[in-house]
Amino acid sequence: MHLVHTAAELRGMLDGERGVAFVPTMGNLHTGHLELVRLAAGAGRPVVSSIFVNPLQFGAGEDFGRYPRTLEADCRQLKAAGCDIVFAPDVAEMYPEPQTVRVVPPLADELCGAFRPGHFEGVATVVLKLFNMVRPRYAVFGKKDYQQLFILRTLTRQLNLPIDILAGETVRAADGLALSSRNGYLSAAERAEAPRLHAVLSAIVGAIAGGGRDYGALESAARDALQEHGWRVDYVSVRAQATLLPPRDGEDRLVVLAAAHLGGTRLIDNLEVASQ
Amino acid sequence: MHLVHTAAELRGMLDGERGVAFVPTMGNLHTGHLELVRLAAGAGRPVVSSIFVNPLQFGAGEDFGRYPRTLEADCRQLKAAGCDIVFAPDVAEMYPEPQTVRVVPPLADELCGAFRPGHFEGVATVVLKLFNMVRPRYAVFGKKDYQQLFILRTLTRQLNLPIDILAGETVRAADGLALSSRNGYLSAAERAEAPRLHAVLSAIVGAIAGGGRDYGALESAARDALQEHGWRVDYVSVRAQATLLPPRDGEDRLVVLAAAHLGGTRLIDNLEVASQ
Repeated sequence: MHLVHTAAELRGMLDGERGVAFVPTMGNLHTGHLELVRLAAGAGRPVVSSIFVNPLQFGAGEDFGRYPRTLEADCRQLKAAGCDIVFAPDVAEMYPEPQTVRVVPPLADELCGAFRPGHFEGVATVVLKLFNMVRPRYAVFGKKDYQQLFILRTLTRQLNLPIDILAGETVRAADGLALSSRNGYLSAAERAEAPRLHAVLSAIVGAIAGGGRDYGALESAARDALQEHGWRVDYVSVRAQATLLPPRDGEDRLVVLAAAHLGGTRLIDNLEVASQ
Repeated sequence: MHLVHTAAELRGMLDGERGVAFVPTMGNLHTGHLELVRLAAGAGRPVVSSIFVNPLQFGAGEDFGRYPRTLEADCRQLKAAGCDIVFAPDVAEMYPEPQTVRVVPPLADELCGAFRPGHFEGVATVVLKLFNMVRPRYAVFGKKDYQQLFILRTLTRQLNLPIDILAGETVRAADGLALSSRNGYLSAAERAEAPRLHAVLSAIVGAIAGGGRDYGALESAARDALQEHGWRVDYVSVRAQATLLPPRDGEDRLVVLAAAHLGGTRLIDNLEVASQ
């Protein structure tokens, strides 16, 4: 496996390659990421993974500074998972000048975007830059970041990028907690409480499967359950998979999404609802 | 020369081509465009020219509806100039869904952008889409649209597109008028008056070459000269070539830009000032 830090080195390695499978990450990898690498390796070669903590997608007061950087351990895991090339640029390589060209995706002010102004613009910008550096045939993102996946699919389609976007299923701990780099911020007591986020989403999915259609009441009950246990809730929301907007009457491909803070840690999760 | 109307046909033809030279146009071609095609043919092969009147870059009340569509004559001229492939998509091919991903370039509210809200966002979006469809090694734009050229160079660099942007010199009629598809809107009397736009820019360049540094006074004199002859002036502005912003003290690579209306026709022009 090769580790490169500049776009020029990367292009030298990828010259003439037409089946590149790409997994962008911010590093601090866990099993969820490694499943994305395995999915990529089944789709194309070489497998390129990027590791870049993108300042553009962090707001003021967010965790850009303390976000864990673990390059050596990440490389060991990537190699074992079948990655061929790791691209780990520094900030000056990615942004040699102030970024004045803005990529503004849809739904940038919805769901997580309502609580993280500029976040999805930062994500869209860095992913478009990485796509143009790597020029992949396939790119893999996790369903854990469901809104991000939706936005990047839309961006790829509307900007006519010749890339197939593949989605990896969310990987969970045995108690249901979705794997996330940010789980590392949790205290032992918070870690014990954290699976409740998945539990309240499961309860909504179960209620809808059982015929429940009062989404507002289901969302409120979930918020209350979290707040009673010390969470600060950003949102719990039933949305249409096709648009990520509130479902219209009779719309049956749904997804339930939530974001909430436990102490100083913001966690997100979601569950798709099987068609009724 | 091949004429294709869909991105799929185009990709079929360009498969494996790595030296594509691309000239995006809105059709209604004149000698200025054909010089861009010749410049492209000197840079790479095959030469692809697109013809697409992009609704996204026209404002309400602008000339989208009456912009001249002359595909057959355009194709004859393109063939003679050395073009290999003409890509002429319709609006549904370019925008099969509402464009919700926005590409917002810098300087979008400066100069022409101040008078045409959304124009450069529309230009940036369609050019990025075309770049991703054509995947050129070279792309050619005219200096006549100086702000557009600046914006697209910035976009290409900041989004890490592997494309060299080449600039074609402005082609002028013998009396100095810059060639433009919109010259066709002018009455005979307006056509006789139109070269004054170039004349006032030349006067500013001459004054700066002669040591003039009171750019505000030069701009005002030019505005007055135009208004006295029936023009409605959007702007006359001395700017730095490097930033397209007002020059700082001592900045010596300058460009003078203007936009003004003659009757119902909006004309633009610019002249670079040689370093002092």
